[in-house]
Amino acid sequence: MFKLYYAPGTCALASHITLEEAGADYTTERLNFKANQQNSLEYLAINPKGRVPALATDRGVLTETPAMLVYIAQTFPTAKLAPLDDPFALAQVQSFNSYLCSTVHVAHAHKLRGARWATEESSFADMKRMIPKTVGACFELIEKQMWRGPWVMGETFTICDPYLFTVAQWLDGDGVDIKSTPKVADHFKLMADRPAVRKVLEAEKA
Amino acid sequence: MFKLYYAPGTCALASHITLEEAGADYTTERLNFKANQQNSLEYLAINPKGRVPALATDRGVLTETPAMLVYIAQTFPTAKLAPLDDPFALAQVQSFNSYLCSTVHVAHAHKLRGARWATEESSFADMKRMIPKTVGACFELIEKQMWRGPWVMGETFTICDPYLFTVAQWLDGDGVDIKSTPKVADHFKLMADRPAVRKVLEAEKA
Repeated sequence: MFKLYYAPGTCALASHITLEEAGADYTTERLNFKANQQNSLEYLAINPKGRVPALATDRGVLTETPAMLVYIAQTFPTAKLAPLDDPFALAQVQSFNSYLCSTVHVAHAHKLRGARWATEESSFADMKRMIPKTVGACFELIEKQMWRGPWVMGETFTICDPYLFTVAQWLDGDGVDIKSTPKVADHFKLMADRPAVRKVLEAEKA
Repeated sequence: MFKLYYAPGTCALASHITLEEAGADYTTERLNFKANQQNSLEYLAINPKGRVPALATDRGVLTETPAMLVYIAQTFPTAKLAPLDDPFALAQVQSFNSYLCSTVHVAHAHKLRGARWATEESSFADMKRMIPKTVGACFELIEKQMWRGPWVMGETFTICDPYLFTVAQWLDGDGVDIKSTPKVADHFKLMADRPAVRKVLEAEKA
């Protein structure tokens, strides 16, 4: 039995969808970011980073989306969410997810989380102005250099798909028109139609 | 046969050391960052991101350090560089490496790579002033919350160790005294004494 700590609108959605796609037995706990619950003593005892997602398991708590996604895929191998028997293909999956985590998500984070890296209002404003360009450039690279289709890795759905869908949810707020990357836009629609995705989005809204 | 594209002083060192620790058959190609060789048309054909590291293999090019490290560990299982038969333990390895990649390296990158996220000189100066604090906070979290010792994951050397050593090389230039995290400081010395590490550092200097 797993317990996923999440907040709506965050990258925890990728793990939430993946748990559902895997057919995992799990519960969720929603954190109230407006009340800064992620930095409460109670939650810091679970995840000292003060971030979501965190996945409580029988053996301890896991954090960091790329690690959690592979772990879920390995724990539910019959769901076939990653090429577990092919190290090179798995590395390609991991490379894509690592790019989302350390470049795309980081670019996006400069819109509202500038205080992680600077102190002045003028710097925050400068960072915000760059968002459409930086996030847009990431998605252009995905569309033009990394894309296979219809899923991220080609014919087979993998743990890259929920993660891309999650990050693509932020495009509108980031001032990037998803239509400028039509393959990603098609993928977004495909994902939104999956029963697991619908169920999770409903649960996070409720 | 692998070919590693790297530049001295970059996070490519982690993959370089890991290839050596694995006993891999590999060659290297050094990129001249001062001449902006990472953005030459020739290199962009290898890695469209214009970054290092990149690992050329018989099946194609891999990028992103966390993905490459697991791939090397899986390709050379007798080197025992990761807990490949234990998904939870592997997830802990991946979680640590993902933190280095998406939080610690990103914090460090705001010293010289501010132009990735902003345009104004005042913003770059603001970011630079934050470096000792942000990078220092990352290493304090590693020391106080994640540490097992003597290696990152405890008694066994893993792919976390070359990566931490690589990022810790930047501490001095980032204005963080490694002695303020004595366990990380001890680890740094342990790593520097390994024959594979000495050999790779010599090769990158030559």
